[in-house]
Amino acid sequence: MYKICVIEGDGIGKEVIPAAITVLKATGLEFDFNYAEAGDEVFEKTGVALPEKTIEAAKNADAVLFGAAGETAADVIVKLRKILDTYANVRPVKSYNGINCLKTGIDYVIVRENTEGLYAGIEAEIADGITTATRVITRSASEKIFKFAFEMAKNRKEEGKSGKVTCAHKANVLKITDGLFKRTFYDVSKGYNLPAEDFYVDAMNMYIISRPETFDVVVTSNLFGDILSDGAAGMVGGLGMAPSGNVGDKYGLFEPIHGSAPDIAGKQIANPTATILAAVMMLRFLNENKIAEMVEKALEEVLELKLTTPDLGGTLSTSQMAEEVSKRL
Amino acid sequence: MYKICVIEGDGIGKEVIPAAITVLKATGLEFDFNYAEAGDEVFEKTGVALPEKTIEAAKNADAVLFGAAGETAADVIVKLRKILDTYANVRPVKSYNGINCLKTGIDYVIVRENTEGLYAGIEAEIADGITTATRVITRSASEKIFKFAFEMAKNRKEEGKSGKVTCAHKANVLKITDGLFKRTFYDVSKGYNLPAEDFYVDAMNMYIISRPETFDVVVTSNLFGDILSDGAAGMVGGLGMAPSGNVGDKYGLFEPIHGSAPDIAGKQIANPTATILAAVMMLRFLNENKIAEMVEKALEEVLELKLTTPDLGGTLSTSQMAEEVSKRL
Ligand SMILES: CC(C)[C@H](C(=O)O)[C@@H](O)C(=O)O
Ligand SMILES: CC(C)[C@H](C(=O)O)[C@@H](O)C(=O)O
Repeated sequence: MYKICVIEGDGIGKEVIPAAITVLKATGLEFDFNYAEAGDEVFEKTGVALPEKTIEAAKNADAVLFGAAGETAADVIVKLRKILDTYANVRPVKSYNGINCLKTGIDYVIVRENTEGLYAGIEAEIADGITTATRVITRSASEKIFKFAFEMAKNRKEEGKSGKVTCAHKANVLKITDGLFKRTFYDVSKGYNLPAEDFYVDAMNMYIISRPETFDVVVTSNLFGDILSDGAAGMVGGLGMAPSGNVGDKYGLFEPIHGSAPDIAGKQIANPTATILAAVMMLRFLNENKIAEMVEKALEEVLELKLTTPDLGGTLSTSQMAEEVSKRL
Repeated sequence: MYKICVIEGDGIGKEVIPAAITVLKATGLEFDFNYAEAGDEVFEKTGVALPEKTIEAAKNADAVLFGAAGETAADVIVKLRKILDTYANVRPVKSYNGINCLKTGIDYVIVRENTEGLYAGIEAEIADGITTATRVITRSASEKIFKFAFEMAKNRKEEGKSGKVTCAHKANVLKITDGLFKRTFYDVSKGYNLPAEDFYVDAMNMYIISRPETFDVVVTSNLFGDILSDGAAGMVGGLGMAPSGNVGDKYGLFEPIHGSAPDIAGKQIANPTATILAAVMMLRFLNENKIAEMVEKALEEVLELKLTTPDLGGTLSTSQMAEEVSKRL
């Protein structure tokens, strides 16, 4: 019996999360779903976007499944990541058959540092019209994220992948902060017998377009990971296809990369793939690897058969697509 | 007679710049080319990557044509941009016929703020293993770059383009710095009767892949522009196709986006397109619009006929490709 804290949040969160829950229920595993609130709606009701009760529920669960928040997204999700000390944001990039990808044969993971960088929250207006934000890079957080990336690469190598780790940074301009980041990367790499390389983040942003098939694990700082991963998602069918996991030593929070998409909310046309894939990541986090595999296979079949929402070329609703996946479990 | 300061720099800079010079000479305009040094080579000789003499030469010219620098690139180019107060970095993104682009119908410009942001050069190791970089956003620099972007959009609208200006920022996380940036954008927009929109930089990095044809002028801060423009170049054939202009109220410095590419240097296989297009931008800066148009047309023909370097599918050398362009002037 797994205790899952479920946060639907706003907009299409209320559609894609129920779709993922449908699929989870069909796996035969036993779940205790504990629903909690966060986002614009609860903010409007109570003045708080991330209630204490939700934080407690998240801490008391084996894993958290998160939908999307609207205007309050940064306050909700950045805060939750910090509170749960989920220092790694894991973003798989995979081209699935049946999906209109700009390239095929893409299968890598972006590992984004999730606690510092420009998300440190240190900003000020130091004089009228003059503002600053402080980007923080520490050796300890860098070590942690690089170890995480190399461990992941080691596992991937065992599965027959290249196990190469690519670090993206801007050490030519950010000589001190990204100098430390890059040095720490190669220091950590010494503990592993795996290929390691590094690129400037600007070049990397071209390579995710021009040769995404050459990457296995890409590791980078917080905001660079945010930017690169949206581009990477664009190559494999868009945000509707892109899940993510926020993982720490204790907690795991899984969410689609997309937001609340108010323009299409309430219409049952939102693509649930990203959230179902986030649930797959959650199953792996819970060590239910076989079940995770089974769900991903079922989803792949549904994608190939175009039993999907309209954005992917199908004619089904969000919940109908989830039913199709469930049927195949 | 235009006085042009020519800085070949390192690596393929020594091949692509001569190619562009060949083309410029064939225009029939009169130029006084004044060669100056910068980059790794002069650094090795003298211990200085950007000699005073070069700075003086740049300041005394009507425009600067810059190739590439190697390891010292940041010290050379970031410094030159500041010294010349070229506050706008203009990066056209255009899909040319005959080029293997991921999408067609792309024709927009990224305008990158060129003086502040994370390029302010304020970094420190504040304790062992704890480093910071300060991102600076000011109202005055933001106003300047937005006015520049809207003026450019106004001109583009007169040429029949949409004239839409899109601002990319991360105001949901960087509430103070990018809050100011975004507010200033809409303040400046009020002075123009042009469409204006804004996106988060992560979403923008997906849109340059998923719907690049919907943009006309994209304006953003320094490092975001650096990252976005390399991705944008990846969509239209890579860095070999991507020119840029650093423009201020007084000076203009024009360069390919690519670097010195030591791996292919000295082989006469470097694609001169980006540098020839940088020369075209320089001609426009000098108000030689007709000649600029003529050169771009000639280059387009050469690209369509595949009279190009091998990376573009042709069999010519760097200088032969330049000859083909020159022949058509
Ligand atoms: C909503 C926003 C704060 C968030 C981020 O910047 O991390 C989002 O873009 C993401 O990638 O999860
Ligand atoms: C070489 C480097 C300092 C430079 C930059 O970051 O601006 C380059 O990437 C560019 O885009 O011109």
